Amino acid sequence: MPLKANDPNRKTWIEITENSDFPIQNIPFGVFLTRDDIVTIGTRIGDTAIDLGALHQLGYFKGIPLTDDIFLQDTLNDFIADGRKTWRAVRDRIAEIFDENNVTLKNNKEHRTRVLFTLDEIEMQMPVQVGDYTDFYSSKEHATNVGTMFRDPDNALLPNWLHIPVGYHGRSSSIIPSGIPIHRPQGQKLPQGADEPIFGPSRLLDFELEMAFITTDSNQLGEPIPIEEAESYIFGMVLFNDWSARDIQKWEYVPLGPFLAKNFASSISPWIVTLDALEPFRVEGPKPEKELLPYLQTSGKKSFDINLEVGITPQKGEETIVSKSNFKYMYWNMSQQLAHHTVNGCPINSGDMLASGTISGPTPDSYGSMLELSWRGSKPIKLKNGEERKFIEDYDKVTMRGFCQNHQSRIGFGEVSTEVLPVFKPKK
Amino acid sequence: MPLKANDPNRKTWIEITENSDFPIQNIPFGVFLTRDDIVTIGTRIGDTAIDLGALHQLGYFKGIPLTDDIFLQDTLNDFIADGRKTWRAVRDRIAEIFDENNVTLKNNKEHRTRVLFTLDEIEMQMPVQVGDYTDFYSSKEHATNVGTMFRDPDNALLPNWLHIPVGYHGRSSSIIPSGIPIHRPQGQKLPQGADEPIFGPSRLLDFELEMAFITTDSNQLGEPIPIEEAESYIFGMVLFNDWSARDIQKWEYVPLGPFLAKNFASSISPWIVTLDALEPFRVEGPKPEKELLPYLQTSGKKSFDINLEVGITPQKGEETIVSKSNFKYMYWNMSQQLAHHTVNGCPINSGDMLASGTISGPTPDSYGSMLELSWRGSKPIKLKNGEERKFIEDYDKVTMRGFCQNHQSRIGFGEVSTEVLPVFKPKK
Repeated sequence: MPLKANDPNRKTWIEITENSDFPIQNIPFGVFLTRDDIVTIGTRIGDTAIDLGALHQLGYFKGIPLTDDIFLQDTLNDFIADGRKTWRAVRDRIAEIFDENNVTLKNNKEHRTRVLFTLDEIEMQMPVQVGDYTDFYSSKEHATNVGTMFRDPDNALLPNWLHIPVGYHGRSSSIIPSGIPIHRPQGQKLPQGADEPIFGPSRLLDFELEMAFITTDSNQLGEPIPIEEAESYIFGMVLFNDWSARDIQKWEYVPLGPFLAKNFASSISPWIVTLDALEPFRVEGPKPEKELLPYLQTSGKKSFDINLEVGITPQKGEETIVSKSNFKYMYWNMSQQLAHHTVNGCPINSGDMLASGTISGPTPDSYGSMLELSWRGSKPIKLKNGEERKFIEDYDKVTMRGFCQNHQSRIGFGEVSTEVLPVFKPKK
Repeated sequence: MPLKANDPNRKTWIEITENSDFPIQNIPFGVFLTRDDIVTIGTRIGDTAIDLGALHQLGYFKGIPLTDDIFLQDTLNDFIADGRKTWRAVRDRIAEIFDENNVTLKNNKEHRTRVLFTLDEIEMQMPVQVGDYTDFYSSKEHATNVGTMFRDPDNALLPNWLHIPVGYHGRSSSIIPSGIPIHRPQGQKLPQGADEPIFGPSRLLDFELEMAFITTDSNQLGEPIPIEEAESYIFGMVLFNDWSARDIQKWEYVPLGPFLAKNFASSISPWIVTLDALEPFRVEGPKPEKELLPYLQTSGKKSFDINLEVGITPQKGEETIVSKSNFKYMYWNMSQQLAHHTVNGCPINSGDMLASGTISGPTPDSYGSMLELSWRGSKPIKLKNGEERKFIEDYDKVTMRGFCQNHQSRIGFGEVSTEVLPVFKPKK
């Protein structure tokens, strides 16, 4: 059954610029602070933010089983926990309310004033309280590049990589929305040739171009999610910058994995684009190179064609796009990741975030980290202002963007953009 | 200044058996479901559970700045966020209320009926909502034993181990209180000598004897916690069983660390014993064998003398104690763990849980896991009923206990006890 809200022919009475990431077919979900300092759940059409809390109070969601305060919350966790049937009903209703042929809200000035905001009147917040955050390592190109640089070019992929969507647990408390600056982290590093570590600012600060999906409540402790049901537990996706300090990582990561090299910050785009909105952009992922165990076998279009790019804006000068990649390069798909994550009975909750791992493509200009783009610093990247970058410098702004495009429509994620400040100085 | 609630001479009008873990000097905090199906925050003296929500409603905390509903919650997170000054005032007041010379509550039958419960009238819940859970690897004996078995006896400790309290992120969603059974996990394993993994139940299911500490809100994103302030952010401690599936772990853990081998369950004792209550049992930890970087240097008594034991109760037969260890063996102390965790600016929140890693002592009978006790299965452990154990079998119950004891008093943690059920069978 086609999704009503996805109707490519629908037009809206909200003004939209050409190539907007947020046509009426998108209807993402986010949380924002309004001009009245109220936190509310909202959506976005074009450059107009829509207060769903106000819409609900005004009766626009009548007939949909929703609690009165479902949108008057500072996270989407409870709404996401309501499940896919509810998400779809709400998205369909929003499409109707803003359809160009529907004048109910359009002609009600008082209601419009309460419901609609320009982007400069709002401040985006974290869309969910992330209970647990998992980071996968699911791009074969990325894993191969890293294995080549750090271990052995002839055995770049470890023996488990083609059998398991390798993943590890990350830190929820330091996931922040686009626009929040971060400080350059400090930590222990082992200088080249030294026996003893030193302490100081990371000199190899890096981004990782990733996407993350957000889940709903699903299984009980002990109960796996079968792979064929996995997608029904996925609410939507965001862009995800998995900040990484390569010098700290190299010294600390054996034998239990990355820790302080990652947990100082991860930045996300604030609008969650639903899996439903991405439906027209399904594609098949790469064919498995080894036969997979049955619990990981999928068929059909389980990946999505999402164009991705990363730009660096130095303190003085304009932005240079340093990478163009695509989500479809991922070797392991989200169904496989979720089925694997729960096959041992690990419970998944509403608002959990599962990131892809760095999304590197097959060509050097599609690599998803400075580590790979500058090949460990051996091939500096030229910026438009004449400067070079091996890694990220203080006051650089790193911006990631993503969108799907076909002949009928464009569904985008907006951006996640983060400035890097110097090392934190404690107040005296 | 001595802590008033710790007065070793204080006696209570509540009946207490000899050698109770919960004398009036303990006053731990927990969350329980009462006979009326109400969730409340409480404490425990002897075998009597005390409803702090009811005590507060009846005015017994007058004069202490507490919100009306601070104890009428299903987690301790908000109370912990109130900070150490408040925890101390509440603990002192509880000591006064139950002092043998105070007859206010003792002689008020109606109040007593509302406030006091026997243990069989309540059901312990998770004491906190764990935002993030971190597991360290801070016992030198454990790290050496594992390194000897899995890597190289001559280089058992990796180069970073004596410089860094090595840690990694774990899964919050599967932390459960004592008494909740778990299912044996399934997953991928590489059979000895095979090239391809197989899928099935873990055959090497293990416990890890650990303790965990619970933090309050502290630093902002980007801001380290100086090591000399670290303890003021620690609310208290629990016993922690870090369930582990060794066969799954061995195949999955390179290069990003343990994942499904750990995240199916971790079990905790439900009463949080405050760091204040442990004050009389401070001891110095092992001397660092390498000079530490300044941000990790501590002096004085930063560890605690906590006796620990693990028992296995098979389906048929009585319990056998298989390990006796002590928290004081830990090479890295909690101040070092917290200072390290935040030195890069990683934010710590109220209710976060930081576990020690397996606490193995110097002698084979003090090892904290079956992996070490049975030396990878080569030395089976004899149980009292005549059976042998290399690892944990279905229907075994694993129980961990911990207590401090000096000539004046005993402060204990109670126990964390968990039965292992067979692999989960989905309903048809």
